[in-house]
Amino acid sequence: MTNITLDRLNSVDETEFVAALGDMFEHAPWVAEAVRASRPFPTLASLYQAMTAAVRASGPERRLTLIRGHPDLAGKAARAGTLTADSTAEQAGAGLDRLSEEEFAAFHRLNDSYRAKFGFPFVICVRRHSKSSILRQFERRLQHDTAAELDTALDEVFRIVALRLDQRVSAPDRLKVHGRLSTHVLDTSSGRPAAGVALELLELSDAGEHRLIAQSVTNIDGRTDRPLIEQRPLPIGSYELRFAVGDYFLRQGAPLADPLFFAVVPVQFAIAEPESHYHVPLLVSPWSYSTYRGS
Amino acid sequence: MTNITLDRLNSVDETEFVAALGDMFEHAPWVAEAVRASRPFPTLASLYQAMTAAVRASGPERRLTLIRGHPDLAGKAARAGTLTADSTAEQAGAGLDRLSEEEFAAFHRLNDSYRAKFGFPFVICVRRHSKSSILRQFERRLQHDTAAELDTALDEVFRIVALRLDQRVSAPDRLKVHGRLSTHVLDTSSGRPAAGVALELLELSDAGEHRLIAQSVTNIDGRTDRPLIEQRPLPIGSYELRFAVGDYFLRQGAPLADPLFFAVVPVQFAIAEPESHYHVPLLVSPWSYSTYRGS
Amino acid sequence: MTNITLDRLNSVDETEFVAALGDMFEHAPWVAEAVRASRPFPTLASLYQAMTAAVRASGPERRLTLIRGHPDLAGKAARAGTLTADSTAEQAGAGLDRLSEEEFAAFHRLNDSYRAKFGFPFVICVRRHSKSSILRQFERRLQHDTAAELDTALDEVFRIVALRLDQRVSAPDRLKVHGRLSTHVLDTSSGRPAAGVALELLELSDAGEHRLIAQSVTNIDGRTDRPLIEQRPLPIGSYELRFAVGDYFLRQGAPLADPLFFAVVPVQFAIAEPESHYHVPLLVSPWSYSTYRGS
Amino acid sequence: MTNITLDRLNSVDETEFVAALGDMFEHAPWVAEAVRASRPFPTLASLYQAMTAAVRASGPERRLTLIRGHPDLAGKAARAGTLTADSTAEQAGAGLDRLSEEEFAAFHRLNDSYRAKFGFPFVICVRRHSKSSILRQFERRLQHDTAAELDTALDEVFRIVALRLDQRVSAPDRLKVHGRLSTHVLDTSSGRPAAGVALELLELSDAGEHRLIAQSVTNIDGRTDRPLIEQRPLPIGSYELRFAVGDYFLRQGAPLADPLFFAVVPVQFAIAEPESHYHVPLLVSPWSYSTYRGS
Repeated sequence: MTNITLDRLNSVDETEFVAALGDMFEHAPWVAEAVRASRPFPTLASLYQAMTAAVRASGPERRLTLIRGHPDLAGKAARAGTLTADSTAEQAGAGLDRLSEEEFAAFHRLNDSYRAKFGFPFVICVRRHSKSSILRQFERRLQHDTAAELDTALDEVFRIVALRLDQRVSAPDRLKVHGRLSTHVLDTSSGRPAAGVALELLELSDAGEHRLIAQSVTNIDGRTDRPLIEQRPLPIGSYELRFAVGDYFLRQGAPLADPLFFAVVPVQFAIAEPESHYHVPLLVSPWSYSTYRGS
Repeated sequence: MTNITLDRLNSVDETEFVAALGDMFEHAPWVAEAVRASRPFPTLASLYQAMTAAVRASGPERRLTLIRGHPDLAGKAARAGTLTADSTAEQAGAGLDRLSEEEFAAFHRLNDSYRAKFGFPFVICVRRHSKSSILRQFERRLQHDTAAELDTALDEVFRIVALRLDQRVSAPDRLKVHGRLSTHVLDTSSGRPAAGVALELLELSDAGEHRLIAQSVTNIDGRTDRPLIEQRPLPIGSYELRFAVGDYFLRQGAPLADPLFFAVVPVQFAIAEPESHYHVPLLVSPWSYSTYRGS
Repeated sequence: MTNITLDRLNSVDETEFVAALGDMFEHAPWVAEAVRASRPFPTLASLYQAMTAAVRASGPERRLTLIRGHPDLAGKAARAGTLTADSTAEQAGAGLDRLSEEEFAAFHRLNDSYRAKFGFPFVICVRRHSKSSILRQFERRLQHDTAAELDTALDEVFRIVALRLDQRVSAPDRLKVHGRLSTHVLDTSSGRPAAGVALELLELSDAGEHRLIAQSVTNIDGRTDRPLIEQRPLPIGSYELRFAVGDYFLRQGAPLADPLFFAVVPVQFAIAEPESHYHVPLLVSPWSYSTYRGS
Repeated sequence: MTNITLDRLNSVDETEFVAALGDMFEHAPWVAEAVRASRPFPTLASLYQAMTAAVRASGPERRLTLIRGHPDLAGKAARAGTLTADSTAEQAGAGLDRLSEEEFAAFHRLNDSYRAKFGFPFVICVRRHSKSSILRQFERRLQHDTAAELDTALDEVFRIVALRLDQRVSAPDRLKVHGRLSTHVLDTSSGRPAAGVALELLELSDAGEHRLIAQSVTNIDGRTDRPLIEQRPLPIGSYELRFAVGDYFLRQGAPLADPLFFAVVPVQFAIAEPESHYHVPLLVSPWSYSTYRGS
């Protein structure tokens, strides 16, 4: 489905409006139908607000059906290729399309336990999570009682919809669904930005895997030309930034130890707030460094 | 061979003196014989000095024979168990007794090239090196010309002897053959030493292996009760210190992000000077840390 | 004299052009006359370039006369009020209009020595200097030989003119004559910008005086709403930034020492490059802080 | 009065014992009398414990008389020279013997208010305080009710006695009455201790005065040969350590800005716990530094 402007959504007839947004809520075009008469929406936020209000105003049965419309995570439907296009893309983004047999079995087990306890599938906005974080959420939410878990599931449905709306609709305003991860390298021995420092960003799983998700080299300002992650939620999870400071200092020509005291600086940190800006700078000399959550 | 005091070495008869120190230089009791008449030695340093002077004063042929008396590193003699006791222990300490077939082949190849070029075996004081560092030295020294390499080999023989003397002889003075690696964790959010921080020291190989070589927990002063490495040369090589600061901060009860921003702080550094003191402290709050070569 | 656009300078008749720029070089309208025929100037930089080239192309006599057209610093003309408007404003900016009797005498002495040695007045672009820095330059340049000093004096004339042009002429481009001093306060105990931190910027003189030159409070981003100095060259000299971090931490409500370990953090630093950006951040917890030249 | 050993105190006759310790409590030899029969005291701590227990066991009248036996701080007796030797030395140590007329008037006013409210003089262990801190305590304690203030006054009497005992009696154990202030300078651009850094310690008063109380130069380990303050309580108050790092870096010969970015690093901090160890290190490169309460 292609992108559409808010202006156009406000001016097309009701059928076209529902056609454009009927798939925002999984298998629930009734939500788009419920808000079509409230047009025009001055902002994307007001459209989103109207849709979530329509869901909240509907009865508990309808909300339960809405939640039930979602597929299992990494479930048989995913393997069989019968998911909606959005669900397929979302699950792939978190790596749920390339699970080991063991992980697949773990998801299968958790899905069964969850459905047995609550009677509906486990819904989570996967774009806000890494694989490890999804598994952790799964286990936590299995401890909930049904009322609390229904609330949680609905919140996740709304998060999924916010991201879908943000992608589908062009509007002057944006929903706050994106985060940003950036870095900066300062050479404290020269008081200047460290240019030309190669760096890598790895996602760490609880199982000890390292997955490379970004690579860059610092520019003349000691920054990367683009944030390491942007234009999407930052997946909750553990990361390692690796800065190849040794090569940088060798190029500066100062007399150094052999081997270098610091060749690579690894910084392991976790993201907890997907919609925030995380700035993780490095202040470094050949013999010392500092890092911190900056701003 | 058991430990002996310098006093006793100074007072026993010449036969006993040579029996006690004849194996300091590999297959070369003549060095002990050469210095026995110079007794008494007021210090261990003067004994060491006399022995190395005797070697330097001997002819080039004799020095070459001395070097040739050393076994190949990780060679067939090691596999066959025909090394001297000292050589066996020294090679095992650097992990040369547990090489993969590939590594064994690499050593074999380097030994052959080296012998072919210089006509004597590659001698290195292995207790001052990690496996990766030995391989790097091997490749560097293969670039030497024969005169330079003879000097280097003799220096290494002397380093081996210094360590053997230090172990064999009790004296009021000590040869400077040991280094020390220590750490300290300070909690900059409370201005106090961080007590109870679990930490690990890993040796990193160029091939990407991690070998755990020490584990500890910080005490009330934020230090470990004993240095992480002491009473031996620090092997030249790459290391990673891992500090489990997340568990520490959770125990302090402050409100923290979930997951924690810093759960484990890894610090990768290299040792270049085996006989030095390396102090690698960590100044850490839940959101920032610094590390450096301290003193 | 009011501001004029580059477009207008390019289109007015020659008389008006010379009227508009005749005072850029002190008592030397001939420089404006020399470049009027080269119009149009596509950029302010090309106009500046043309004027300095005209001076360099003129004979040594003319250049000497140009230098001689400048008044003594803090001299009798200043006291008598007979300086050009530009010179008056420039000298006042560096505090030369409020000298103690002692300082006045020092300037008088240096002016006399300088004139006696070189036969022309000491010219310096005072907006790039503090009072202490001017005195230091005076003493250094007295060591020059005449040829070197003529070059230096001409460079200073050009710097004065660049600043005057930048102020007089509106153009799409700007001459690089301004610097910027900024700060940032990050609370490393919370991982957030420190908002509401009161801070002061003082200029320090060699004589030990402190002159308050800016005051501010950090905003929600831990920055000041405007740079501490901007839109002008940063005067070469010594400064102290004082951050009232104690009041900030008391407001955060954490348990602290009484009295606070850090109530005020003073950071003394010097500016050496008037046209650069100096960023002097503070990373601070109740028990630790770092500062550095950032970017 | 000269020093005496605990052994001797345990073995002399009762008269001599009382003669030796009768002046520990101001004008109250009865405390020494009360404990003489409890000898021998195995430790200095047990002697101190017995004396304070005797005071606590005495009636409220006797305790009030004990408190009343103390002179006014900076009062007329001090000016007239009629204090006990101990009181004179103690008051001089905190600078109470060199007050300005204004300060003398302030103390006079506070003494009068205090006596008017409580009916006894303001007692404070002046060796644990700076002048500013004494004035602050004076104002705080004026807010107490009489019962609380009697307890506070008695605690101060005991602190005074602990210090006097520690000075008078040699024993294998020591009372915990001393603190220590130390520093350390590490050059993070070279990874080595910064040797030869001149430093000063100033006491800062609330009125803005700076009083130099120690000067030193760092040794080869980057430390001062002796702690900056030791063998006494650290006076509660504000301090500034000034490190002349500019001269140090100039001697290292690296290319630096002119003027130097950091010539002097001032660190202002407060001491709140007189019996603690305060370690205030500096990690410094030509363009960055950190400081913190270390250990």
